[in-house]
Amino acid sequence: MAARSRDPSPLVLGLLLCALNPTVSQAGKLLLVPVDGSHWLSGLGVIEQLHQRGHDMVVLASEASVHIKEGAFYTLKRYPVPFRREDVEEAFIKLGHGVFENEPLLQRVVKTYKKVKEDSALIFSACSHLLHNKELMASLVESRFDAVLADPFLPCGPIVALYLGLPAVFFLNALPCGLDFQGTQCPNPPSYVPRALSLNSDHMTFLPRVKNMLIFLSESFLCNVVYSPYGALASEVLQKDVTVQDLMSSASVWILRSDFVKDYSRPIMPNMVFVGGINCAGKNPLSEEFEAYVNASGEHGIVVFSLGSMVSEIPEKKAMEIADALGKIPQTVLWRYTGTPPPNLAKNTILVKWLPQNDLLGHPKTRAFITHSGSHGIYEGICNGVPMVMLPLFADQMDNAKRMETRGAGVTLNVLEMTSEDLANALKTVISDKSYKENIMRLSRLHKDRPIEPLDLAVFWVEFVMRHKGAPHLRPAAHDLTWYQYHSLDVIGFLLAIVLGVVFIAYKCCAWGCRKCFGKKGRVKKSHKSKAH
Amino acid sequence: MAARSRDPSPLVLGLLLCALNPTVSQAGKLLLVPVDGSHWLSGLGVIEQLHQRGHDMVVLASEASVHIKEGAFYTLKRYPVPFRREDVEEAFIKLGHGVFENEPLLQRVVKTYKKVKEDSALIFSACSHLLHNKELMASLVESRFDAVLADPFLPCGPIVALYLGLPAVFFLNALPCGLDFQGTQCPNPPSYVPRALSLNSDHMTFLPRVKNMLIFLSESFLCNVVYSPYGALASEVLQKDVTVQDLMSSASVWILRSDFVKDYSRPIMPNMVFVGGINCAGKNPLSEEFEAYVNASGEHGIVVFSLGSMVSEIPEKKAMEIADALGKIPQTVLWRYTGTPPPNLAKNTILVKWLPQNDLLGHPKTRAFITHSGSHGIYEGICNGVPMVMLPLFADQMDNAKRMETRGAGVTLNVLEMTSEDLANALKTVISDKSYKENIMRLSRLHKDRPIEPLDLAVFWVEFVMRHKGAPHLRPAAHDLTWYQYHSLDVIGFLLAIVLGVVFIAYKCCAWGCRKCFGKKGRVKKSHKSKAH
Repeated sequence: MAARSRDPSPLVLGLLLCALNPTVSQAGKLLLVPVDGSHWLSGLGVIEQLHQRGHDMVVLASEASVHIKEGAFYTLKRYPVPFRREDVEEAFIKLGHGVFENEPLLQRVVKTYKKVKEDSALIFSACSHLLHNKELMASLVESRFDAVLADPFLPCGPIVALYLGLPAVFFLNALPCGLDFQGTQCPNPPSYVPRALSLNSDHMTFLPRVKNMLIFLSESFLCNVVYSPYGALASEVLQKDVTVQDLMSSASVWILRSDFVKDYSRPIMPNMVFVGGINCAGKNPLSEEFEAYVNASGEHGIVVFSLGSMVSEIPEKKAMEIADALGKIPQTVLWRYTGTPPPNLAKNTILVKWLPQNDLLGHPKTRAFITHSGSHGIYEGICNGVPMVMLPLFADQMDNAKRMETRGAGVTLNVLEMTSEDLANALKTVISDKSYKENIMRLSRLHKDRPIEPLDLAVFWVEFVMRHKGAPHLRPAAHDLTWYQYHSLDVIGFLLAIVLGVVFIAYKCCAWGCRKCFGKKGRVKKSHKSKAH
Repeated sequence: MAARSRDPSPLVLGLLLCALNPTVSQAGKLLLVPVDGSHWLSGLGVIEQLHQRGHDMVVLASEASVHIKEGAFYTLKRYPVPFRREDVEEAFIKLGHGVFENEPLLQRVVKTYKKVKEDSALIFSACSHLLHNKELMASLVESRFDAVLADPFLPCGPIVALYLGLPAVFFLNALPCGLDFQGTQCPNPPSYVPRALSLNSDHMTFLPRVKNMLIFLSESFLCNVVYSPYGALASEVLQKDVTVQDLMSSASVWILRSDFVKDYSRPIMPNMVFVGGINCAGKNPLSEEFEAYVNASGEHGIVVFSLGSMVSEIPEKKAMEIADALGKIPQTVLWRYTGTPPPNLAKNTILVKWLPQNDLLGHPKTRAFITHSGSHGIYEGICNGVPMVMLPLFADQMDNAKRMETRGAGVTLNVLEMTSEDLANALKTVISDKSYKENIMRLSRLHKDRPIEPLDLAVFWVEFVMRHKGAPHLRPAAHDLTWYQYHSLDVIGFLLAIVLGVVFIAYKCCAWGCRKCFGKKGRVKKSHKSKAH
């Protein structure tokens, strides 16, 4: 295509007319039921935008919430729970520490299971206390919200929405154990849709497909420990039989923080909206402190290093290994780290308690990004076109790293097994081998080339559900079928019965015909023979 | 939601920034391979918009094309074919006449089969002549287009795109026989996705599901007569084995003229873009002639009546029945009709050779729309919120009518069997029963409430494919699997073999163990017994 510049006015006009649609500017009341932790942080952009568009928002949070705090854009309603904020903080810290414990697999699995069980019991008790808080629930009924915006990762929000009889919008990254596929009735053939935590890509040879199928078959059991209590709680509160799948199926629209630059192409449903990279919006100029660091880095530029909002400390031995590796590259490294500084910290490495990650990644002097490959970090890497060295720690981080690696945009290391040399080599590779920069830039161009910004899209669909009291036209009829009807097993059985019946009757008719035609002769012959004897 | 007006500036700003994206304003070269008839007409809006955005377009059409003519927005390249324009016109006229012939079912099926075979042979020969036109094909190679925009309803465009090694964008309503599902690798469970021509809705009881499954199973044979020659032609031209599914799978992006207000919610794929209602854009004020008709209609308003671009004449007997019915309502009827005026035409009925359908439907005095329920007409009815009396004639029109009827937005009549009374009653019903107006207005609100106008969306995706030379990230890996791999049959077989093997070995071990434990005793007892005898 020639680079001939043209006036894009017709498109602009269309978009403008669409944006100025009078229905868009109606303000309403929205109830938010978020999940504490990094999940909450990812929705803040949407909340700010919804506030700017005039909507009144109430955020429900337990008194022990760590990240959910009073904010200028919403009213916070706290409810009492039988545990303290410190308990939750301790759970978060333990989660961070746990990933650096190098134990045998079985011990690790047992420990993870116990930890998941403990933490989910804690959070579940909060949900139970919310739903049994008669005064608060009555005030919510009275408030007459238009819709509920909830994170179904822990399905308390969906129960609240059903209790209040309100349409729900789900805002999330993804759900474990295929619950998102169940909730949306979205097909997900295990032959090319990699299951969560499988580390598979979309192109699988035979054995990875077997692994994928085994995970697929075991998914419904794996998540029971976390999710099944919510089904029982919902049944009690709503006074009717409710399953976890019913809760997950209750959303009008699913706003998913992913896209098909990070994730692989696969079937989707019309009520799924993809807003991957929503966290890249709202870039700010660097503060004087960080501007100074970047300017002082010279021709080699900088490397940004963060393990996310949940992990900011590392065991000393590992921290020293990392510090050693960082000292081997010519770039200045800005490392978000709140622990005791490793004694071998090199001169090129600056420890900071917090860093403006997206703004730093957007700086032209940034050469690489060391990340735990959480979905936020990955998208900030993609948006800003920065090659990555990925140290996945838990949850979807391994899968995210795998996706970036298969696309040639980064190198993945096992944080427990890597040596100082491995990290230094990985950094040198992604910085000096131009293919990494080219690949991440290609991904960045594809990702950023979209007809509407993800933040605007998310806001549009929240408002759509508020305006129309749901989106029933987007709900597939699959929700009203049993599993055997969905897979047409009754129809296949019926048709098979007919075919077999026809074959049987045809066979019987032929046999009867044969007996009629040849039978007598045979008998005559036989009797003739026997007479002859 | 309170009707509090707010400044939508953040959203507008976002959209503006997005629309002003410098990559959007790069102009390129696009090759169009359309299908003659109403299909061509539906793409004109996109072509005009692409022209306004500076793209050079070449349209390929046979010398016998009826609807594809010279235009201000593109260069028309005609190629010679071994039949005349009159032959195509005759085929179109025969198609129109055929639908009014009331014959026994079997005779009708045989006649339709013959007609489809004849017409498709005609069009196929045009495609063959295009691809064997060495001079023209060489000039296309030299022209160095960025992409091909094709209607795959007759898959000549996909072959041209593959021959030129260019990415293709498909622009269409839908394909028969599930070819669109095959081409996109989109799952389509027959339990709730109604097959084309099934007249099923998405909520089916047992027998309709059986019917749906039978159509599903027979689809691959039904379309062979039309489509299989293209596979052979493509194999010859491209000098490698190419199937019809390969041709259909070659698109980077599918722009589909449907949405989930007209159609039922179902699985989709990330490279499907839905632009239903794209033909509603570009409304103009009525000409003096039509303005006068509308103004003269008084309080009762008008009814718009058209059977589409392909059918403008009706057998006299049927036309008289219709004229009789139209005379029974108090509204003024504007009827697009080019045949001899029926002698019993009432005073309230005005025959016109052409009418500005979308503009008339948008007039507040329009009370109802009598339509053949082609997708264009249906969308114009939805956009403008006009209840419909539907007289479906062929192809997808029956299904369209069914969709509108199940949503309470119109009444369907069998044009062959209906009496004058039926039509008059249907018109009175949709005009006087307020539920029809309410339902179509609800659909209209849902349909028009979208984050970006369909015309802009279509233009965006055509340009996206031109900019990025395709959209490989949106292509599902399912295209690289065999049918048994896609359905995981090899994996299921392998796992079953392991399970059965383990069961067999366990059984053998148990049997061996039992023999070891009890076998000797048994034998001892036995030998003891035999000794005792």
